[in-house]
Amino acid sequence: MNKLLIVGTVAFDAIETPFGKTDKILGGAATYIGLASSFFNVDAGIVSVVGEDFPKEYLDLLENKDVNIEGVEVVKGGKTFFWSGKYHNDLNSRDTLVTELNVLADFNPVVPEAYKNADVVLLGNLHPLVQTAVLNQLTEKPKLIVLDTMNFWMDNTWDELMEVIKRVDVITINDEEARQLSGEYSLVKAAEKIHEMGPKYVVIKKGEHGALLFHKKEVFFAPALPLEEVFDPTGAGDTFAGGFAGYIAQSENISFHNMKNGIIYGSNLASFCVEQFGTKRMEDLKREDVNTRLKQFKALTQFEIELDE
Amino acid sequence: MNKLLIVGTVAFDAIETPFGKTDKILGGAATYIGLASSFFNVDAGIVSVVGEDFPKEYLDLLENKDVNIEGVEVVKGGKTFFWSGKYHNDLNSRDTLVTELNVLADFNPVVPEAYKNADVVLLGNLHPLVQTAVLNQLTEKPKLIVLDTMNFWMDNTWDELMEVIKRVDVITINDEEARQLSGEYSLVKAAEKIHEMGPKYVVIKKGEHGALLFHKKEVFFAPALPLEEVFDPTGAGDTFAGGFAGYIAQSENISFHNMKNGIIYGSNLASFCVEQFGTKRMEDLKREDVNTRLKQFKALTQFEIELDE
Repeated sequence: MNKLLIVGTVAFDAIETPFGKTDKILGGAATYIGLASSFFNVDAGIVSVVGEDFPKEYLDLLENKDVNIEGVEVVKGGKTFFWSGKYHNDLNSRDTLVTELNVLADFNPVVPEAYKNADVVLLGNLHPLVQTAVLNQLTEKPKLIVLDTMNFWMDNTWDELMEVIKRVDVITINDEEARQLSGEYSLVKAAEKIHEMGPKYVVIKKGEHGALLFHKKEVFFAPALPLEEVFDPTGAGDTFAGGFAGYIAQSENISFHNMKNGIIYGSNLASFCVEQFGTKRMEDLKREDVNTRLKQFKALTQFEIELDE
Repeated sequence: MNKLLIVGTVAFDAIETPFGKTDKILGGAATYIGLASSFFNVDAGIVSVVGEDFPKEYLDLLENKDVNIEGVEVVKGGKTFFWSGKYHNDLNSRDTLVTELNVLADFNPVVPEAYKNADVVLLGNLHPLVQTAVLNQLTEKPKLIVLDTMNFWMDNTWDELMEVIKRVDVITINDEEARQLSGEYSLVKAAEKIHEMGPKYVVIKKGEHGALLFHKKEVFFAPALPLEEVFDPTGAGDTFAGGFAGYIAQSENISFHNMKNGIIYGSNLASFCVEQFGTKRMEDLKREDVNTRLKQFKALTQFEIELDE
């Protein structure tokens, strides 16, 4: 079974959307990535940090999904990273209400021996120096390194971000971040510029408008599934990345052709994530649900036109 | 050859985008629709009105594309409808600078005898009473009636709009208009509500984010082709509708399956329209260009996943 190394936050979230609000619940990029990757036949392990206040049941939840948590450090007396946000009516934008870094402030990631030769590495959204520290501990070159990041690191740690971007194969960012990173408004041109920074593959996430995968002159698009209700977009981008990386790790195939499928699986899983608050929907999700939705994605996008030339 | 009846404006536009500006040039919904439909093997005729100031070369341009202009009334001493607009930097929104209705204010559409039994009718964006007047002149029930409209008519002529919406098979509107028309934010729910108003098929145009086709519980999505440069979005929606209606008229097949292809052809043609100012790109467009882009649309959207159940 191929190994997928996941680095990212395991955290508390408190979320408010037009449809309700939650107290502190399970959140964090690595949590969503881990849950998404658990739908694939991979040996996934998380490197992260939590405080002593983090409920054992949350860690059990990941273990029960066969996600290895040996690399999740529990800091004695420490408090877990906490994020709170409120979404606007259209759910496309949000205000951050609270960010308490807590144990994340001094996070020194330690990759367990068993994952130092991971086949696929997914660097979830974190300080680029933490992402770099993980890459430096690997003993074998992974088949694929995927980097997720955000505008915050572009604003505050540009040089460090450039160093880690150089070393990765795939970058996943949203459309505004792609524009900020490249200085180009056209996403086609933005992807070209970002290719030149290092990543051979550029994934641009557009939320409810789907996702684009660029590789040199090739481009593939996966729509978001049109849904009756979206309750909470939190974690959708991480779930997308986790679905993508999980599928690629399982299939051991990093061709562009296969990455298309990875993007579809990422969109598929993300379409469930937003249906309930937090990780709830992903916890209960069944393989049959994913397969049913895959058929919906096919119906949504596949067409047959004969060329009359 | 099947007949396609097109009703809409033939007009002057003056356009400003971040990439430049034009003086008064050829514009109007029916112009764009006519040019788009000319890529299909159909007998297309336009019903519209222009003033005496309208250059003969513009009408010749349509005739040279085999678009019948018998139904384009030239009002002696009248002035042609003029619209001027300025696009914002993202090209997704614009301000209208000038709207001079001129001869359009008293437009009384007269459908030429030869088009009273049209196979497909495309009611371009116009006053709903004008659209209704056209339907009232038909001597045979068309295989398909397509209606394009906009928020202006929802704001100002709601009741008249509802009357014509009842009578059409397909409505094409943008996402904000779908929300306004239905009172629903979710596009899935919006489409359901609009179905209940009459149209069996609801097409929601999302500009650079593609287009959705809804029919009962079925949904199909066509992305916009990611482009290096977009110069001028004017007419893209009309071109989309013209490509859709032209393809359906040519193929004489109003199944949902075939409408998917129509949506793809609409997106295909619209992707050219935006590459130059006004109608320029559509005037020069070759069948080979359309076929090449069709292959790009396939590469952009088609994937192969085997279900491992």
